Amino acid sequence: MPLHSSLTFLREVDKLKAILRQTRVTFDPERRENDAEHSWHLAMMAIVLAEHGPRELDLLSALRMVLVHDLVEIDAGDTFLYDDAHAASQDERERAAADRLFGMLDEPLRGELRGAWEEFEAGTTPTARFARALDRVQPMLQNLYTNGASWRAHGITAAQVRAKSEALVRAGAPALWAHVDALLDDAVQRGWLAG
Amino acid sequence: MPLHSSLTFLREVDKLKAILRQTRVTFDPERRENDAEHSWHLAMMAIVLAEHGPRELDLLSALRMVLVHDLVEIDAGDTFLYDDAHAASQDERERAAADRLFGMLDEPLRGELRGAWEEFEAGTTPTARFARALDRVQPMLQNLYTNGASWRAHGITAAQVRAKSEALVRAGAPALWAHVDALLDDAVQRGWLAG
Repeated sequence: MPLHSSLTFLREVDKLKAILRQTRVTFDPERRENDAEHSWHLAMMAIVLAEHGPRELDLLSALRMVLVHDLVEIDAGDTFLYDDAHAASQDERERAAADRLFGMLDEPLRGELRGAWEEFEAGTTPTARFARALDRVQPMLQNLYTNGASWRAHGITAAQVRAKSEALVRAGAPALWAHVDALLDDAVQRGWLAG
Repeated sequence: MPLHSSLTFLREVDKLKAILRQTRVTFDPERRENDAEHSWHLAMMAIVLAEHGPRELDLLSALRMVLVHDLVEIDAGDTFLYDDAHAASQDERERAAADRLFGMLDEPLRGELRGAWEEFEAGTTPTARFARALDRVQPMLQNLYTNGASWRAHGITAAQVRAKSEALVRAGAPALWAHVDALLDDAVQRGWLAG
């Protein structure tokens, strides 16, 4: 692929730094994190928590997935996990974004990155399930470290958190779920999360 | 390594999102990027530009390096490439930071991540040279996309840019240097960079 085209894509993806999430950074509960920061944090989690991942984990593949999984939000925007109304159109918006963004690349890179995104979305391989588990746990941890800043801002309950994420995290990183589950109970006790 | 200790480390590294660089994001020349965003962008570059890297490139190893290479700045702060006065104490400050941060991990992870950082710093392997080349080119590109915002803010000249980075980028990604070198000439013509 010509260097010029590679750099055009790498310039375009800079916009991920502008996509704000509901999640806050640990050192400032007022400051929302963006998708680039979130993606970097997931990559660190993949490396550090690999030993708690599935036996079949392909770490390079997991890193590729978490690094690119939110690129579609450059066009489609971030959909808050608990915003079911907005979620209805999410799949269509994200698929159009994937067409445009990965379409900027030549093969084989286009297929590789599109494939990483599709594999993450489908969540059928052990590596994708691990990556998806991290993507759910990271905002929970950021909430736990900021006294439930984004949970409280949106009146989220422990039942909602578990309904959205328990099965998914259990499927990808069971030990991690067991740990986080206990932290959720503690968060309810402390009033950071509605019981 | 116990999950609790892994999560303590992953919480600590959240602080990378607070370390501001001189470099600006492409969509807002007033907004400085932070080390987490920069590290994510380097990881994207490693994936997309791998085909222009050395034959011996180990992509997983390159990703590990770029993802962790700036963690030491959590304690040591960011040193602007052209700030030679501050650079004098940089090595000592960063080494102490590496002791503290990687020391939070158990083996074998501690050795793996410390090793990735040391390999990046030494720059003696083809993969490390590639990773270091990306780390130099990324801020140049961000400058080129913001009409030289941080170059102009600090009165940086083309000769300074070349003195700091030409040999290093050539050594790690020669085709990338040839491309960027022409863009630097263009930046001087446009007045984004002093000639």
